[in-house]
Amino acid sequence: MERMNSVTIIAKKRDGEELSEREIRYFIENYTAGNIPDYQAAAWCMAVFLKGMSREETIALTMAMAESGEMINLSEVLDFAVDKHSSGGVGDKTTLVVLPLVAANGVPVAKMSGRGLAYTGGTLDKMESIRGFSSDIPPERFKTLVAENGIVLAGQTNDLAPADGLLYALRDVTGTVSSKPLIASSIMSKKIAGGANGIVLDVKAGSGAFMRTADDARDLAKIMVGIGEGVGRKVTAIISDMNQPLGRAVGNAVEVREAIHTMRGEGPPDFREHCIVLAGHMLRLAGAANKADLSDIRPSLEAQLDDGTALEVFTRMVKAQGGDVAQVEDLGKLPQAPLIRDVISERSGYLRQVDAKRIGLCALDLGAGRAKKGEPVDHAVGVVAHVKVGEKVEAGEPLFTVHARTEDDYTHAHNQLLGALEWSDRPGLPLFYGVLSTEA
Amino acid sequence: MERMNSVTIIAKKRDGEELSEREIRYFIENYTAGNIPDYQAAAWCMAVFLKGMSREETIALTMAMAESGEMINLSEVLDFAVDKHSSGGVGDKTTLVVLPLVAANGVPVAKMSGRGLAYTGGTLDKMESIRGFSSDIPPERFKTLVAENGIVLAGQTNDLAPADGLLYALRDVTGTVSSKPLIASSIMSKKIAGGANGIVLDVKAGSGAFMRTADDARDLAKIMVGIGEGVGRKVTAIISDMNQPLGRAVGNAVEVREAIHTMRGEGPPDFREHCIVLAGHMLRLAGAANKADLSDIRPSLEAQLDDGTALEVFTRMVKAQGGDVAQVEDLGKLPQAPLIRDVISERSGYLRQVDAKRIGLCALDLGAGRAKKGEPVDHAVGVVAHVKVGEKVEAGEPLFTVHARTEDDYTHAHNQLLGALEWSDRPGLPLFYGVLSTEA
Repeated sequence: MERMNSVTIIAKKRDGEELSEREIRYFIENYTAGNIPDYQAAAWCMAVFLKGMSREETIALTMAMAESGEMINLSEVLDFAVDKHSSGGVGDKTTLVVLPLVAANGVPVAKMSGRGLAYTGGTLDKMESIRGFSSDIPPERFKTLVAENGIVLAGQTNDLAPADGLLYALRDVTGTVSSKPLIASSIMSKKIAGGANGIVLDVKAGSGAFMRTADDARDLAKIMVGIGEGVGRKVTAIISDMNQPLGRAVGNAVEVREAIHTMRGEGPPDFREHCIVLAGHMLRLAGAANKADLSDIRPSLEAQLDDGTALEVFTRMVKAQGGDVAQVEDLGKLPQAPLIRDVISERSGYLRQVDAKRIGLCALDLGAGRAKKGEPVDHAVGVVAHVKVGEKVEAGEPLFTVHARTEDDYTHAHNQLLGALEWSDRPGLPLFYGVLSTEA
Repeated sequence: MERMNSVTIIAKKRDGEELSEREIRYFIENYTAGNIPDYQAAAWCMAVFLKGMSREETIALTMAMAESGEMINLSEVLDFAVDKHSSGGVGDKTTLVVLPLVAANGVPVAKMSGRGLAYTGGTLDKMESIRGFSSDIPPERFKTLVAENGIVLAGQTNDLAPADGLLYALRDVTGTVSSKPLIASSIMSKKIAGGANGIVLDVKAGSGAFMRTADDARDLAKIMVGIGEGVGRKVTAIISDMNQPLGRAVGNAVEVREAIHTMRGEGPPDFREHCIVLAGHMLRLAGAANKADLSDIRPSLEAQLDDGTALEVFTRMVKAQGGDVAQVEDLGKLPQAPLIRDVISERSGYLRQVDAKRIGLCALDLGAGRAKKGEPVDHAVGVVAHVKVGEKVEAGEPLFTVHARTEDDYTHAHNQLLGALEWSDRPGLPLFYGVLSTEA
């Protein structure tokens, strides 16, 4: 009976028919329970990949996965839980700045983040550059922290949307990762299980992102906003560029340094702008900013970065989660690589490309990331890019600074980084490609 | 590395690209060796199902599966090995008549057959209605028998195209059975591994067949003839009707009885004609009949059925393989069901439909078939249809004779059989839908 049903469901999707909410729930629940074997789920994923899913199917899949484990309820401690999610990028340390910035405006943030994989970094790995910082926070402590401090950053528990964890691992080894309905439901299931009432999605487009083009990213964003509408969560999706790294630093400690610089009113302009826009949208969703016009809140956000208010909240979070505040106050105390050396430009010209993926892979090879789940990362190593697409470079100027463990690592990185560049004789790339929202 | 490759191969097929011979061989060899897990093979099968395969890919898959185990070489004992294969049907006892008929014309036949599954019967199950008949014949004995007797009918060894066995079992539970390139390569891989130089394929079309329409069957036939051309085997494919049972008997002993009747010059005209056409094509491929015109050999084939020559060869085969010849000579000695009773027509009219699949399912429920691999079958039970599509029936005439174990079984069969009929007021269905051949 069980086998009959799962094969029928696979065949129905294979033939391009729409699955009912009941069929999707049956399939996900039985897969999670181990009654449906991996090979059937793999065939189903490939059928979904090639035949797609309707809005209703995607919503059903999202909720089936969200409800496959613990559903966190933050309503005891928060009137409105606002969350953000980035689809994964290179140099994306946005959470480190946006969380304090939002909390500084009186909107408490209780966020769960993940770890890096392959060429994309993870917020937890970055934060753990700070000695003692712990993201391993039990549910009750999580609620206490947000109630007391207005800010908490925890690791995702395995109990959150376990169906998504299982299905993602299977998709990873069956060529079925880059399916928009599967990506959308994977992201949204975790956010919904995490208890978010409002979600700002940062959907990356470009060489360093899952979605290579802005059109693909917009399609993915539309699906996720549609899920939000379907399940009664406020969702704003921002499509942002990931053809070059966000900001300048790619690694762990180097990114923490850049985030702290940004909260000291310094930091790269593109990254600062990115953080202001994301924080503004989060505050809008939470009802703390004018719905109609982000420009109303911009001056106060800029001030909170410049006058140390955001950094004060960040420091409070680090302290509450066991981190060494001295490393935040004196960035020289953060982990340092044994070898820090520039890559010098041998030519002059404008940069037409600073390939995000290649720079991410370079940081991975230096040891900043992990090729497989569970591997340790080196917090000290990484890359800082001194150049952005469209900028003018003169021969003899530094293009990158490499933070490496050995001479050999530096040499390897040097060649990789030069290979990430393409030259031209004029400017740029947009920072954002658009905004979609349930709050139109 | 291995994992990388298999995922890359899955993704390539998923994206509709053509796989190289090397990639297909890598995938099949590693799947057979257990290095590629079922879930990856399942995703791959679904991608093949939905994206199809080119002629070159299908040939590569066929040969990779054929060469995954033992390759039988009959050239020591046969100048030219001619084989036949039916795509599976209801009441298809053709092999029982065609093998002796071909052998009677001086062309030795060394055939491997399978067992029945679900509503389709299997040659071995039918032959085992004869007490003592054994199809479990080791390779050396197989060769001796054909050399000495000119005829042998054995069970397929598990060593023959083991990759196909594994892949078929996986397709069965992942909704990926009814893919033409996968069906074509499955059939052809076993025939090629079995050592056939010439193959006559009987591709069924209709309610009782994998292929529901003659167009689908023709497409499948074209692919298999293409494989034959590609690998240098002579192949003739006949597209034949399976909307109603072939002949009248459906079961095991009842089919043996009908086959022997046919070799006594009796038997249903449609089945007799089917056997003559198939035997003619096999003799053509073996060079023992005129290539241009089957009608040259028809009179002698008819004579060999009418004068007992074919039956003599059949009897010789039964004896050589340990069967009780007394049961061939006296059909009353074949297994008999405890209850043999007619289903009487309550109305008059022409028959518009005598649904092959429903009659096959009725025989299965009576105990003549197996729902799952490995289950035993009852040789005595079955159904004999007295009516064919297009025939006139008067109220009070017998429609079927049911051979059952119990009253309850009879009642169940009675209702199933009446449900298999649709009535009208005029004639028929074609016997064949066409012929395709490498020998045009």
